[in-house]
Amino acid sequence: MASCLISRHFALSLHRNVRLSAPACRYVSKAAPKTQQDYDYNGPSMKTTVPGPRSQNVGAINFFCNYEESRGNFLVDVDGNRMLDVYTQISSIPIGYNHPALLKLMSNPNNLSTLVNRPALGILPPENFPDKITESLLSVAPSGMSRVQTMACGSCSNENAYKAMFIWYRNKERGNAAPVDDDLTSCMINKSPGCPDLSILSFMGGFHGRTLGCLATTHSKAIHKLDIPSFDWPIAPFPRLQYPLEEFTRENAQEEARCLEEVEDLIVKWRQKGRPVAGIVIEPIQAEGGDNHASPDFFRNLRNIARKHGAAFHVDEVQTGGGATGKFWAHEHWGMDDPADIVSFSKKLLTGGYYHKDELQADKPYRIFNTWMGDPSKNLLLAEVLNVIRRENLLEEVTRSGKSLMNGLYELQAQYPGILSRARGQGTFCAIDICDDATRNSLLLKARDKGVLLGGCGDKSIRFRPALIFKEYHVHMFLNIFNDVLAQHK
Amino acid sequence: MASCLISRHFALSLHRNVRLSAPACRYVSKAAPKTQQDYDYNGPSMKTTVPGPRSQNVGAINFFCNYEESRGNFLVDVDGNRMLDVYTQISSIPIGYNHPALLKLMSNPNNLSTLVNRPALGILPPENFPDKITESLLSVAPSGMSRVQTMACGSCSNENAYKAMFIWYRNKERGNAAPVDDDLTSCMINKSPGCPDLSILSFMGGFHGRTLGCLATTHSKAIHKLDIPSFDWPIAPFPRLQYPLEEFTRENAQEEARCLEEVEDLIVKWRQKGRPVAGIVIEPIQAEGGDNHASPDFFRNLRNIARKHGAAFHVDEVQTGGGATGKFWAHEHWGMDDPADIVSFSKKLLTGGYYHKDELQADKPYRIFNTWMGDPSKNLLLAEVLNVIRRENLLEEVTRSGKSLMNGLYELQAQYPGILSRARGQGTFCAIDICDDATRNSLLLKARDKGVLLGGCGDKSIRFRPALIFKEYHVHMFLNIFNDVLAQHK
Repeated sequence: MASCLISRHFALSLHRNVRLSAPACRYVSKAAPKTQQDYDYNGPSMKTTVPGPRSQNVGAINFFCNYEESRGNFLVDVDGNRMLDVYTQISSIPIGYNHPALLKLMSNPNNLSTLVNRPALGILPPENFPDKITESLLSVAPSGMSRVQTMACGSCSNENAYKAMFIWYRNKERGNAAPVDDDLTSCMINKSPGCPDLSILSFMGGFHGRTLGCLATTHSKAIHKLDIPSFDWPIAPFPRLQYPLEEFTRENAQEEARCLEEVEDLIVKWRQKGRPVAGIVIEPIQAEGGDNHASPDFFRNLRNIARKHGAAFHVDEVQTGGGATGKFWAHEHWGMDDPADIVSFSKKLLTGGYYHKDELQADKPYRIFNTWMGDPSKNLLLAEVLNVIRRENLLEEVTRSGKSLMNGLYELQAQYPGILSRARGQGTFCAIDICDDATRNSLLLKARDKGVLLGGCGDKSIRFRPALIFKEYHVHMFLNIFNDVLAQHK
Repeated sequence: MASCLISRHFALSLHRNVRLSAPACRYVSKAAPKTQQDYDYNGPSMKTTVPGPRSQNVGAINFFCNYEESRGNFLVDVDGNRMLDVYTQISSIPIGYNHPALLKLMSNPNNLSTLVNRPALGILPPENFPDKITESLLSVAPSGMSRVQTMACGSCSNENAYKAMFIWYRNKERGNAAPVDDDLTSCMINKSPGCPDLSILSFMGGFHGRTLGCLATTHSKAIHKLDIPSFDWPIAPFPRLQYPLEEFTRENAQEEARCLEEVEDLIVKWRQKGRPVAGIVIEPIQAEGGDNHASPDFFRNLRNIARKHGAAFHVDEVQTGGGATGKFWAHEHWGMDDPADIVSFSKKLLTGGYYHKDELQADKPYRIFNTWMGDPSKNLLLAEVLNVIRRENLLEEVTRSGKSLMNGLYELQAQYPGILSRARGQGTFCAIDICDDATRNSLLLKARDKGVLLGGCGDKSIRFRPALIFKEYHVHMFLNIFNDVLAQHK
């Protein structure tokens, strides 16, 4: 394995010699314009089936990777297979592998101290931390939010966001008076009123993480939830839109109205049974649950329902945030000045955390707290990722690539109506349904053996989650290979 | 702030010129032997009160730090105050600030890829990851455990450990048969039998984290739990030992027997009310809750009670693990071959996670899972920390320093019986009680202004949590200053 490790200097000079060569465009007649990305590879290169002989395939492990040799949009495995990565570590790699800007950043000796001295951020932050947060996370704060709390991962982000909503809700109920003795003593033994019977309303098909609080709002697959105790919290239906959208305008509007009505009914019902809804949590696109979309109108109405019933509105952008929809946050597509009370993130942001409105700030120190509360070394990476996104206009690139990807999916869907349906997406955050689960899984493996790494979601969907540096050129590379896979599919 | 940033090369050459000078030993008559630690400072140096004018003091923030200038046992703040750190970022810095071995590691270009390409470890691990885990975490695996699961933080570690216990318990109940349809459908809506009414038994005064599952087992302070919904899980009393231990042998044995009896009663009671105890979780020393100790016999008996009732036994070593008790794991002091079914860790281990016995392995992939499942860059740091611990015999140092610290605390307690009581500890993981909360807080601030950073725990205790490189020399430095603070206390 030592031979796989290459020095940075050698690596950089090596990759200067890698230039893009013209791809063979079997599917799309016109060759897509190539962009100079001298650290990226020019295409997949497969030496074995995957997993190959040097890999292992146990439990959930797909195969073992050679991250040193991976570049840009290409993930290299231990057998030297180089795959176009349209899954990017479950949508968590923002600007590809070994981006030169990040390598440079991490080799800057000025950053060493941040790498080796992880602080307890909540009590002893580094002197420049507020500035760093202003430059990074707050520079992309959702509309109406000027506060952010970092956390270590997506689940912790949502758990703490839920806590912030509960604290806010109970303070309202107390009229912002201090808790009484009964609150303070009963909470120590997990009892009401100190530990109140409040709830979070979530949606069937939603995914918000796997720790016990998050899991009570996750309803995408049984394997996530089986055998784990949960809370009696309300679960609303998420709209099941029919595609193509333009043919089902009326039906889809009715479906969304039905779901919103159910949300209100549940809020009333849970209030009546003594478990008031303190917050509503929703993904702008249900990702893990099958890339389920709803209209901006649906979300605007839902946000109003939350407000009307005194519940906080939490938009979970763990998977949608960071630019893949063509906007930095997917909720920006709703066109609202006041889209949410809380927006949580992780994955492409490289650190977990949540933004919140001023009133969702906990009233006392140590209520939202843990030892690390994030990690300044991840913030360092994020700040540079944001620089690259701006410098390289990556949101525009995503919008452009996303259009090509959707057009290609529409064409493939027209060509293979027995296999493909319901092509949908925003930016490059796209998905398509396959006729059944077995075919979906077979296509995923065949595509992988041809050098395209994809992920599934929901019962029978394929989700596309490329990095933000996925250009039209890469879209066509993917479409060519996927077309071959479909053509050979029996 | 840029002027505070120093290049690595400059930093190393600068600190070679810093040598320890003989301390003025006001408290201890004989001077402690000095150890050559050429990157450490020779003592505190205070320029202002803390927080000083360049710091801010909002919410839980104590003050802002200059981590670039901090070295070894000394934390430097933004006003240039240099404090002997006996709290170490809530016990999470294993070998001091800017340890040369860690600076060297992080400046090795071979490690750059690990810093910039964070994988989804559960599905696409780096090729050398199993070897790295074997060299690092598994090289210090608790007795009887050969499996480890990394996680991002302490709370996630415990949440997932609880899930592993629930899954194991339900599989036992099903006779390892596959779940039936009713299990799979009911779990999607948070209902039994899919989401069963199982419980985790915890102890009053325990702290296991602040996410909703963990929080249901945390009972140290009301501020952690107030307003957050919880589970109806059993809570047993933790022994309240009387000190000095040798004077209260009989009373303490009775107290421990009482608590164990209560544990068994609770297990029976919760089984009867349909919420069987799937696991028992306990800290070897209740840290956040006030540094509460129990005898090895107590833990051995408790482990047997868990076995007898078919519950898993989870030892939470998030704060005690990593060497501060003089053994790598605090449970080693119990002298058992089979101390636990699960041991969780974080903090000084730099990554979260938990060890478990083979039978606690989830039966299917994706049951214990999340996007990152830890972070190889933290594992890299941990491996080097373990090398340093071995190379520098730090566990022996801790034992030696711990004895000095305890002797010093006993002497101070004899000298100030109106203020100090119940000195207790293992290794340097020590604590002492102060007469009341207000005096405790006043002493903490006075010590800080004299250059010693300490933390509180429980109602009125001070906890000592130095790094593993805290030598006898530093113990005496602390005792001198603390003695001065006590002498001046009105």
